Amino acid sequence: MVMSLEIVSSNKSFGGWHKRYKHRSSSLNCDMVFAVYLPPQAEQGAKLPVLYWLSGLTCTDENFMQKAGAQRMAAELGLIIVAPDTSPRGEGVADDANGAYDFGLGAGFYLNATQEPFARHYRMYDYVVQELPALIEANFPVSDKRGIAGHSMGGHGALICALKNPGRYQSVSAFSPISNPMNCPWGEKAFSLYLGEERSRWREWDASVLVAEASEKLPILVDQGDRDDFLEGQLKPQTLQAAAKAAGHPLTLRMQPGYDHSYYFIASFIDDHLRHHAEALA
Amino acid sequence: MVMSLEIVSSNKSFGGWHKRYKHRSSSLNCDMVFAVYLPPQAEQGAKLPVLYWLSGLTCTDENFMQKAGAQRMAAELGLIIVAPDTSPRGEGVADDANGAYDFGLGAGFYLNATQEPFARHYRMYDYVVQELPALIEANFPVSDKRGIAGHSMGGHGALICALKNPGRYQSVSAFSPISNPMNCPWGEKAFSLYLGEERSRWREWDASVLVAEASEKLPILVDQGDRDDFLEGQLKPQTLQAAAKAAGHPLTLRMQPGYDHSYYFIASFIDDHLRHHAEALA
Repeated sequence: MVMSLEIVSSNKSFGGWHKRYKHRSSSLNCDMVFAVYLPPQAEQGAKLPVLYWLSGLTCTDENFMQKAGAQRMAAELGLIIVAPDTSPRGEGVADDANGAYDFGLGAGFYLNATQEPFARHYRMYDYVVQELPALIEANFPVSDKRGIAGHSMGGHGALICALKNPGRYQSVSAFSPISNPMNCPWGEKAFSLYLGEERSRWREWDASVLVAEASEKLPILVDQGDRDDFLEGQLKPQTLQAAAKAAGHPLTLRMQPGYDHSYYFIASFIDDHLRHHAEALA
Repeated sequence: MVMSLEIVSSNKSFGGWHKRYKHRSSSLNCDMVFAVYLPPQAEQGAKLPVLYWLSGLTCTDENFMQKAGAQRMAAELGLIIVAPDTSPRGEGVADDANGAYDFGLGAGFYLNATQEPFARHYRMYDYVVQELPALIEANFPVSDKRGIAGHSMGGHGALICALKNPGRYQSVSAFSPISNPMNCPWGEKAFSLYLGEERSRWREWDASVLVAEASEKLPILVDQGDRDDFLEGQLKPQTLQAAAKAAGHPLTLRMQPGYDHSYYFIASFIDDHLRHHAEALA
């Protein structure tokens, strides 16, 4: 098995370790960096559940680990957290034609692109669902329990990964997810360029469509700030809520008064999400 | 009183507000930005104690607020936190001749410069001890209790501000402070250029000197990682510890095994520091 990890950095944090690793990704055809938080229990021989955190537009593995304040509670709960990057990277990886923040580098949308010039590298779905967990499970003291969560574009990613893979995840949650990407400007741009103009092909990457057909009814926790500038135009959690309700899919949408789209919002409620995952992954 | 504040940004955080303000500083002769965390109690009519946080080399007001994870406990304790920038800023403010990170912009060292071309703007000591508290006390619901803390260069700043001003602060703490700046490369460079080559003038800005003469014995809490790359060459907390011991000044130096100089270290122990301050400021 050729899945070598090169350590990039290591910082002790809440009695555990925040580590960054570089590796060659076969899904993405490029080198990738990811971060992992290993709580203190990881050094004591325990097999721990893993929460995969998917970040939003423009982020790398670093934003969540630096700004969410998740390590304190992860250390208390004995939860490993893995944070991948948000797109393939490096020379030869196609980017937005105008370098826009909402497409290409930093904006992989957690799908498998079918359109050139993106299909060669942009396979973040395969990376997040298959390759990265295989790497984690081969190299770290993990149990067979997986949770997935994310923010904004990463909230969309967490939802579709869970909804498309019954049995693979035991918990899912999202902050401010792009809930119906087929019908918002960010999603329409990304899906057009990654998947082509045929809208019927977009349906398998849209949480509000997928939730209607999900065979597994994994309870979904969503937090959303009501002063989020992207709420009406891009995020549309009510569309997901309505689709879940119609399908009898358990979803808790908490509208948080006064909160915006930033990591100050995420930090304020991350403990609730970590507990939600830890309970399901125990 | 002309002390107008221009709001730069506002984010709800743990039921309170993280706000950034811009104002004209008369001490520094330039526009400055600072951040304030107002816990939920600030909207309920309470007069709250204030903790001033001084950041380290290269930082602005943002590093601490984004990375330390302090808001959760500050909200619980009802503590206002104020984070100034680390130097004067803007056009006309002299910088390091080679743009080095350890002097000039982002490296004001919390002293009053006497040497040209720095004396015109680099008066961070006056700014932090006098101007900024006056501004805070005129504009926010604060009690007359003040604490001061900081990291690295900001740990040095917190120590000297407290030691030089008996009665002004009721609590002090530091992470990884530059404890004897007269005798380390960072401090020797900064003091030479800000204060001139006459080393006897440096003594009033060095915590390990000041602690020997302090009339007020305010208990000092210091956390220091033992895998901090700057420990031996720059920080020298043992020098401060020895000086405090000789003077009978209460100082708790906690060597934290495995921790480095980063905000991952600060985040791991910030709650202890906030409690240390809240108890003294109650």
